[in-house]
Amino acid sequence: MDNQQSLFETLNPPQRLLMGPGPINAYPRVHQALSQSLIGQYDPVMTGYMNQVQSLYRGVFQTNNQHTLLVDGTARSGIEAVLVSVLKPGDKVLIPVIGRFGHLLCEIARRVGAEIRTIDIEWGGVCTAEQVEAEIKRFQPKLLATVQGDTSTTMNQPLKEIGEVCHRHGVLFYCDATASIAGNELKVDEWHLDAVSAGLQKCLGGPSGSSPITLSEQCADVINRRKHVEAGIRADHHQEGGDMMIQSNYFDLSMIMDYWGPERLNHHTEATSMLYAARECARLFLEEGIENTIARHKQAGHALAKGLSAMGLRLFGDQTQKMNNVVGVYIPEEVQGDEVRAELLNRFGIEIGTSFGPLHGKIWRIGTMGYNARQDCVLTTLAALEAILIRHRARIDVGQAVCAAMECYR
Amino acid sequence: MDNQQSLFETLNPPQRLLMGPGPINAYPRVHQALSQSLIGQYDPVMTGYMNQVQSLYRGVFQTNNQHTLLVDGTARSGIEAVLVSVLKPGDKVLIPVIGRFGHLLCEIARRVGAEIRTIDIEWGGVCTAEQVEAEIKRFQPKLLATVQGDTSTTMNQPLKEIGEVCHRHGVLFYCDATASIAGNELKVDEWHLDAVSAGLQKCLGGPSGSSPITLSEQCADVINRRKHVEAGIRADHHQEGGDMMIQSNYFDLSMIMDYWGPERLNHHTEATSMLYAARECARLFLEEGIENTIARHKQAGHALAKGLSAMGLRLFGDQTQKMNNVVGVYIPEEVQGDEVRAELLNRFGIEIGTSFGPLHGKIWRIGTMGYNARQDCVLTTLAALEAILIRHRARIDVGQAVCAAMECYR
Repeated sequence: MDNQQSLFETLNPPQRLLMGPGPINAYPRVHQALSQSLIGQYDPVMTGYMNQVQSLYRGVFQTNNQHTLLVDGTARSGIEAVLVSVLKPGDKVLIPVIGRFGHLLCEIARRVGAEIRTIDIEWGGVCTAEQVEAEIKRFQPKLLATVQGDTSTTMNQPLKEIGEVCHRHGVLFYCDATASIAGNELKVDEWHLDAVSAGLQKCLGGPSGSSPITLSEQCADVINRRKHVEAGIRADHHQEGGDMMIQSNYFDLSMIMDYWGPERLNHHTEATSMLYAARECARLFLEEGIENTIARHKQAGHALAKGLSAMGLRLFGDQTQKMNNVVGVYIPEEVQGDEVRAELLNRFGIEIGTSFGPLHGKIWRIGTMGYNARQDCVLTTLAALEAILIRHRARIDVGQAVCAAMECYR
Repeated sequence: MDNQQSLFETLNPPQRLLMGPGPINAYPRVHQALSQSLIGQYDPVMTGYMNQVQSLYRGVFQTNNQHTLLVDGTARSGIEAVLVSVLKPGDKVLIPVIGRFGHLLCEIARRVGAEIRTIDIEWGGVCTAEQVEAEIKRFQPKLLATVQGDTSTTMNQPLKEIGEVCHRHGVLFYCDATASIAGNELKVDEWHLDAVSAGLQKCLGGPSGSSPITLSEQCADVINRRKHVEAGIRADHHQEGGDMMIQSNYFDLSMIMDYWGPERLNHHTEATSMLYAARECARLFLEEGIENTIARHKQAGHALAKGLSAMGLRLFGDQTQKMNNVVGVYIPEEVQGDEVRAELLNRFGIEIGTSFGPLHGKIWRIGTMGYNARQDCVLTTLAALEAILIRHRARIDVGQAVCAAMECYR
């Protein structure tokens, strides 16, 4: 077998400017962090780094939650960890669906065996606190689960008022903030969020593969009622919760909290390189400052939208509810959307995004996230897109886009 | 919040020589791979890398299985992905338990709702094909699940004869090869294995956080009978299996096979940096050659064991059934095991392992894996351990260990 096996060439990925809805280019310092030496799982330096990561992500999430930690997997693993740990079969969950990732929450909750009620919003809009409150009164859910920024529609779901409604009605409030975090305001404690999960590969400027999450005390209590310690490491002093055991071992947050807690009870082997990356993403965000980073995303997103509009392209969705870090733009009827994207990639090395479901073939999604929420990235993307659209004989206003975007950077 | 937040120092992990049961130091080329530029999820270069990873791991697993891919999580995520995708609630699974990681298989299978029967082997031994066949006849399981190398006991479960038994009785055969792969023989197709999962952080010489798996056609068929495509990306041509839906979304291998297959149906966002690492681990292994790499592990493990014996220390377990890459050694009664380990770490920067369950406090576990399966690592570890044991007034034979190990490298 050895000799038949092609070993392929040395890894040498091309330089791309990733201006899609994520993943995006990581900050150079994150690449450096990824390549650092490994240390043992229970090395005091390693457990020290784990404590630092918890502290840093309390800053990122703007929370005092003790239970702030990483789930070792992509953003989707954090979502499933929360839902499978909180929801028992038959538990009621209310899910506003504003795009594809709302469907994903339903999908996961369905597999958990929860009873699901959705509030279906037409793609391009968001859900109001009044809609949520009316449905909470009718359905009496244990949990409200929503996404904050849904990249499939570029909309940013307002959370503050929904948090107040949930708090008033004693409903646990979970939010998937993967696409929005670090590019849009997110105040976990102030907004009464009980659980939030995220990923590194959007505005935090890291690679996919680690999911920071935070849990309120109330949420942790609900989860710990389902606690079960693994045979082989269980000791006499371990108390088990009386509720039904969590149906996943890997995503059992009661065990993962113990792994990150003072007992350091063995669970998985922490993904050290990804933890290094997560640590650096948080340091970069907090070093720049939460407000400054969000303002940078807002400025870049605004400049991009202005440039696209100046080109004569039409923007998708309610612009007052849009995420700062991604914009949807209608594909001109006279061009083939995927051909334009392919030529942008092949000629300029620039990636922009296609779209899913009802928007597939209708809009492109262009992101300005993390390291790429920069003037030069915005201007280069506009100049390149304009050039390719001219070549594809799109009817656009030529020579306006870059200037319009530059105006936003005066 | 911004100003109150400590940002901690720049990441600067100490140089450790990781001679425990894993994780261990990664190969330098793996560190380089981890730090390479990110590219988009559907960039042709990225999907090309995914295809290469599949091909490379077919080499690693010595299989022709089409469905050879990565699960994005630690080794434990690969185990759960296989068990939750194959086993429906009520399905019967037979599990030989030779150590802690056998208990883990039971634990996960229990959460899946499977009916479990174990074959309990005293720690330090392995299970025979006769024991398995007798129990298969009585219990009629759908799946036999076992670990190959269980680091908790250092034993290497023989698989070939068990594979023949399973094949003869039409029982699916799954093995967790995390701790053994690349350091011990593993012939997936020849041994009739239907599913194997692994991790990078042992003899493959990478970081924890990616789990290569392989599935036979028969196993993939069983899983695809439970296929369900997510709402939001489901199209008319998608066929659903008739069997009960898999209870996890993240670990639904029917969807993950589609993500890695020609349709590239969106599931998670592939953890690009970890995929780069996994690719490099496989290249290093296949470049050195399967037989050569295993021989290097065998030589290092043998030299270490010889050195420890020459020091007058007693080895744990049946040495004829031991894994090549880790040895258990009784802690001399006159020393405190954890104090010796701490001093080794603090004075020499060398980590060796403690142990779990019935062996806790009785044995140390010392590994020679991946990049660290080298003469210099073995000799340094022996010299350092001897020096610390002398300091702790252990009754050992002084001045013999390094020479005895060097004899194995003539």
